[in-house]
Amino acid sequence: MASSSSLHLSQALLAPAVYLHGSSSERMSLSFPSFSGLKSHSPCKAPTTSAVSRRRGASSTTLVRATAVETLDQTTEVSLVEKSINTIRFLAIDSVEKANSGHPGLPMGCAPMGHILYDEVMRYNPKNPAWFNRDRFVLSAGHGCMLQYALLHLAGYDSVKEEDLKAFRQWGSTTPGHPENFETPGVEVTTGPLGQGIANAVGLALAERHLAARFNKPDNEIVDHYTYVILGDGCNMEGISNEACSLAGHWGLGKLIAFYDDNHISIDGDTQIAFTESVDKRFEALGWHVIWVKNGNTGYDDIRAAIKEAKAVKDKPTLIKVTTTIGYGSPNKANSYSVHGSALGAKEVDATRKNLGWPYEPFHVPEDVKKHWSRHVPDGAKLEAEWNAKFAEYEKKYSEEAAELKSIISGEFPAGWQKALPTYTPESPADATRNLSQQNLNALVKVLPGLLGGSADLASSNMTLLKSYGDFQKDTPEERNVRFGVREHGMGAICNGIALHSPGLIPYCATFFVFTDYMRGAIRISALSEAGVIYVMTHDSIGLGEDGPTHQPIEHLASFRAMPNILMLRPADGNETAGAYKVAVLNRKRPSILALSRQKLPNLPGTSIEGVEKGGYIISDNSSGNKPDVILIGTGSELEIVAAAAEDLRKEGKAVRVVSFVSWELFDEQSDEYKESVLPASVSARVSIEAGSTFGWGKIVGSKGKAIGIDRFGASAPAGKIYKEYGITKEAVIAATKELS
Amino acid sequence: MASSSSLHLSQALLAPAVYLHGSSSERMSLSFPSFSGLKSHSPCKAPTTSAVSRRRGASSTTLVRATAVETLDQTTEVSLVEKSINTIRFLAIDSVEKANSGHPGLPMGCAPMGHILYDEVMRYNPKNPAWFNRDRFVLSAGHGCMLQYALLHLAGYDSVKEEDLKAFRQWGSTTPGHPENFETPGVEVTTGPLGQGIANAVGLALAERHLAARFNKPDNEIVDHYTYVILGDGCNMEGISNEACSLAGHWGLGKLIAFYDDNHISIDGDTQIAFTESVDKRFEALGWHVIWVKNGNTGYDDIRAAIKEAKAVKDKPTLIKVTTTIGYGSPNKANSYSVHGSALGAKEVDATRKNLGWPYEPFHVPEDVKKHWSRHVPDGAKLEAEWNAKFAEYEKKYSEEAAELKSIISGEFPAGWQKALPTYTPESPADATRNLSQQNLNALVKVLPGLLGGSADLASSNMTLLKSYGDFQKDTPEERNVRFGVREHGMGAICNGIALHSPGLIPYCATFFVFTDYMRGAIRISALSEAGVIYVMTHDSIGLGEDGPTHQPIEHLASFRAMPNILMLRPADGNETAGAYKVAVLNRKRPSILALSRQKLPNLPGTSIEGVEKGGYIISDNSSGNKPDVILIGTGSELEIVAAAAEDLRKEGKAVRVVSFVSWELFDEQSDEYKESVLPASVSARVSIEAGSTFGWGKIVGSKGKAIGIDRFGASAPAGKIYKEYGITKEAVIAATKELS
Repeated sequence: MASSSSLHLSQALLAPAVYLHGSSSERMSLSFPSFSGLKSHSPCKAPTTSAVSRRRGASSTTLVRATAVETLDQTTEVSLVEKSINTIRFLAIDSVEKANSGHPGLPMGCAPMGHILYDEVMRYNPKNPAWFNRDRFVLSAGHGCMLQYALLHLAGYDSVKEEDLKAFRQWGSTTPGHPENFETPGVEVTTGPLGQGIANAVGLALAERHLAARFNKPDNEIVDHYTYVILGDGCNMEGISNEACSLAGHWGLGKLIAFYDDNHISIDGDTQIAFTESVDKRFEALGWHVIWVKNGNTGYDDIRAAIKEAKAVKDKPTLIKVTTTIGYGSPNKANSYSVHGSALGAKEVDATRKNLGWPYEPFHVPEDVKKHWSRHVPDGAKLEAEWNAKFAEYEKKYSEEAAELKSIISGEFPAGWQKALPTYTPESPADATRNLSQQNLNALVKVLPGLLGGSADLASSNMTLLKSYGDFQKDTPEERNVRFGVREHGMGAICNGIALHSPGLIPYCATFFVFTDYMRGAIRISALSEAGVIYVMTHDSIGLGEDGPTHQPIEHLASFRAMPNILMLRPADGNETAGAYKVAVLNRKRPSILALSRQKLPNLPGTSIEGVEKGGYIISDNSSGNKPDVILIGTGSELEIVAAAAEDLRKEGKAVRVVSFVSWELFDEQSDEYKESVLPASVSARVSIEAGSTFGWGKIVGSKGKAIGIDRFGASAPAGKIYKEYGITKEAVIAATKELS
Repeated sequence: MASSSSLHLSQALLAPAVYLHGSSSERMSLSFPSFSGLKSHSPCKAPTTSAVSRRRGASSTTLVRATAVETLDQTTEVSLVEKSINTIRFLAIDSVEKANSGHPGLPMGCAPMGHILYDEVMRYNPKNPAWFNRDRFVLSAGHGCMLQYALLHLAGYDSVKEEDLKAFRQWGSTTPGHPENFETPGVEVTTGPLGQGIANAVGLALAERHLAARFNKPDNEIVDHYTYVILGDGCNMEGISNEACSLAGHWGLGKLIAFYDDNHISIDGDTQIAFTESVDKRFEALGWHVIWVKNGNTGYDDIRAAIKEAKAVKDKPTLIKVTTTIGYGSPNKANSYSVHGSALGAKEVDATRKNLGWPYEPFHVPEDVKKHWSRHVPDGAKLEAEWNAKFAEYEKKYSEEAAELKSIISGEFPAGWQKALPTYTPESPADATRNLSQQNLNALVKVLPGLLGGSADLASSNMTLLKSYGDFQKDTPEERNVRFGVREHGMGAICNGIALHSPGLIPYCATFFVFTDYMRGAIRISALSEAGVIYVMTHDSIGLGEDGPTHQPIEHLASFRAMPNILMLRPADGNETAGAYKVAVLNRKRPSILALSRQKLPNLPGTSIEGVEKGGYIISDNSSGNKPDVILIGTGSELEIVAAAAEDLRKEGKAVRVVSFVSWELFDEQSDEYKESVLPASVSARVSIEAGSTFGWGKIVGSKGKAIGIDRFGASAPAGKIYKEYGITKEAVIAATKELS
């Protein structure tokens, strides 16, 4: 049982504390003229004992007793530690107060673990937040972002200066209301929607483990960092976190260390009203090592010991349950939901200052605290310099591997990688675009060192297996096929973590297109946080047939076309699938969704990679002077329908242009001139067809055009039958054309 | 610990078997001329022992030994039971074979538990699938639908006759590729997307518990049924199932009994590749009672005993882990993914017939099996008649409660309920539509006996508390405020279960509008399965301000407008919020999403409940002859912007019509004449404004109109600042108008 082994381990770790515990007189020697001294040792409201006794399943977890942990600096006096912790608390309090908006409760409760992580444990370089081998930190409970901003500020990151704290939650600041990696260097991923962060962290830890397994040598462990997370009750209630944590346990990601801020409070009040499961036991069931720090408010050594124990457990991720008091230090609001999501108010801020013995004006960082933290800038530079030297050694000895790793670190792909993309002619055999997709993946993996991914238990349907690689598993982490199980939401968020680990990592993930509904939360974060994940979404229409309406996407194309900063691509054949991959790989700051067919499609004359890059383009035309009688527009599996309709119509003497509209977003980005050359304003006879919702097509076909599509749910029947019954046919296109022109 | 108490219980239940175990000669007496006899006792490929030994955490669960359970019929010979089970298997095999599409593996493996449930345990009336007090059955592993169709067929449901089995997965049949409640009476909910079914079942069990607590009397337990589920590995990997099951444990839903089809196989192969957590321990952590039936293939008495034990545990839901062999009986495909999702093929069907000793032609139900099952039609009628008599008694004694319960059972609401809807005048104080929503909920709960619901830990932000009720909790299940915790996806699916339990139950659920991304899978099933859930979605735009882009919906309105059979409503003020609720309550077969503001909005002249019912309507107009100079269109919080712009423009002499476009779907359903009266084709000068994606507006404003909206992500700043920076202003509307006219 996990609990007994962890007990054993924690006993083995019971070593004398190396921290200098300041005597009370030493603490008093700090001068706070108008207050009675540091009070952070006095228990705040809501003693933790009663809180603890409510938790079930406690007996099987490990209580860590006072001990110490190796740190970068082992000589900090406890009084200074507490001063630093209170600095963090008040930077959060003051910033929220100034903004009159935000979440002070978590930073106040988590300041101790935050301090220990950033001041004692983590390895990073404040002046280069992108240093490859840094430890990653994810605040999964993203509403507590002031914790992270305060820590980045103290650590010397340029992204969070005093004026940035003062601009918390204001227009154009680097300190938005939730952590956003694209706004604030030093923030790894974008959190706030609960559960995303812990799943991102699983992706970051996966990336580390994979790269370490691929590139580390017995004499040179060039990839070697930890991933730390703080998550709260909210994250732990979300299904996505269970999905991702089940995988983390399965994969044995030993360098993933998660702090569960166990404060018993969520927005609706005490977690007793909706959350009485045993989190400890659940994580043990998921294969995690679980440690409980009962006093997260002042049990600094317990937190340190827990981290040391977590690091010693190398084959399992660790959950450190840290019982804290939300809003610690606030005499009247601590331990209640009222401190979760609003400013304390001037009166309570005063009372908290008094209670914690904090005489300083808002935003003040005491000199000794500032001085103490100032070492992180030189220390960080040193860490990076040492690593750079190590990499130089590595490069000398292992030049091939070094080149691959460099590509992953920099995001610069090997020259000419595009040549690997397969091309097709109309004579190439008809094939499903999901199969063509697999040809692309297998071609690209040979030239892109950072390509890896997999499916949510549909690899053989999504056609996502990399044939020259095995499975990424606990014992084979160097492999590149990732098996996500039936966990779409977790999969998407894990891929966001992988993508944001290093610019050259290109994660792809797959399921049926309709099940993007299960992972939309993560997909939106890909788009927002500029994570270039490739979403390989097969079975993209009623064309999947018998599985029926639960499996047939209808509104999904429209729903992603409406989403900012994402590319919705629906290729029609081999060349377009290759084009879609080219676009997807090149767009490292914009995720791509590839909607791919289950059914076979012919390779059409006129399709091309270059065409796809323009989003919409002419694949055939028998008109002249940019004045066709009609423009027929199709995407994906319906492009062959418009191509066939055009042939028939041309036989009847019509001048017909056929346009493939593979990506609306890319077409939108073309010049007005180009757009006019494809869809001339003067031609109002336009017919579109797509086996999906017509929503949005009105803008393309115009008020006089006709959009053929499906504005109801699908049906269970053979695909051909549904196409016919739903009128997604050549005949429908021809009839519509005749009505219009 | 749960495991020790369950062990105790199972020992207490060790009673002599009452089943007549046929001797081997008796079994041989059944005539199968060309085969060597019934072989279902011979172990198939892949002995369960090895399968079992791979599972971790087994020691803490209970092994149920041979015993028996109370059944409706305790005299069935085991040979007949096995014949019935094989009938189920071959109906599934034959139907999938004929369709050349489908999933035979689960029905073959789960036929024993299916038989026991439908033949021995469940209480239902085949001729009235809607009988209120029936036991509910949910096949969460919906791909195995042939199991349920075979059972409904044997039990005598009119919805699944032999010809329906032969039309499996064909156009227009009652036997679609996954269970669909709207196609097949006898199917309770729509499953297929994994994890939905178990969460629906939690909703069904919640409904039973709530209604029982409200209406049962010491002398008359008028509400009293169980909810049974079969779920597989796939369901158990999905986060939604963890969310819902955590709540089921929290609520102590003792009459929820779930069978976990533990067959070690998912589509990608052995579950070892992605699913090695201890499911047993996880469910124990969630507060469930867990039982393990090691031999689900032939351990009939073990299954029966487990059900008996589950029923005896009244304060916890029970998970019965039943270890089975997927595709049991198929000599070459059992226990492999190849039997999961495709027809066996003629050769393997033959081999399976030989292996299981099945001499019959396809679709044949042996006479003795038919005869045996035939009792369910009269028995079911009797059950319902008895209950009807009970209800008559109840009605006599408890007329008031009976009237309420009748309304819930029938879906007929008390006359004049609409009068409870609040109305407003322009003089009413400005208020956020989320607050107005709460006024409606609290007014409606007084007149609608079936209204209940809650929020995903945002009750005080979503404003969803019913002030005259307490919380639905384990000890107070009669209350109507449901606390879902931070579990959006589970919440939506639970509400689907509640809605589909009884026509008069009206569940509502709430979170921030942006987090519909977390629950879209469930929302789509609401729409598809005609579950009239009311989605109360607040903080519906950048108007929420400082929380920033992770919390600000952009594309969400468009994404739901594109979804079939759902009403997307964005009311602008008090009257429109009341109108939205009227529409939502009346649409019992179509879910509604209400997008509501965080910020205060004025009550505008011209808004009305009747207007909302038309979807789009004129709130003010100074034009004549249906020829305004310009039509300004707004929704929700932007309606006040167009109203203000219109005032300014009118002062300049323009003839301006202002249209509220609160629901596109409702407007679409109006007559062409009405539509023309609101948006005359001759007026091309149209300006729309909405704080969301412009996607789709092209069709409304036309090629010459202008849609003002937001086609990028939001930002963290005070709301007014973002509105200004993003150009969602009166000035922008006026400028656009001047460009157009």
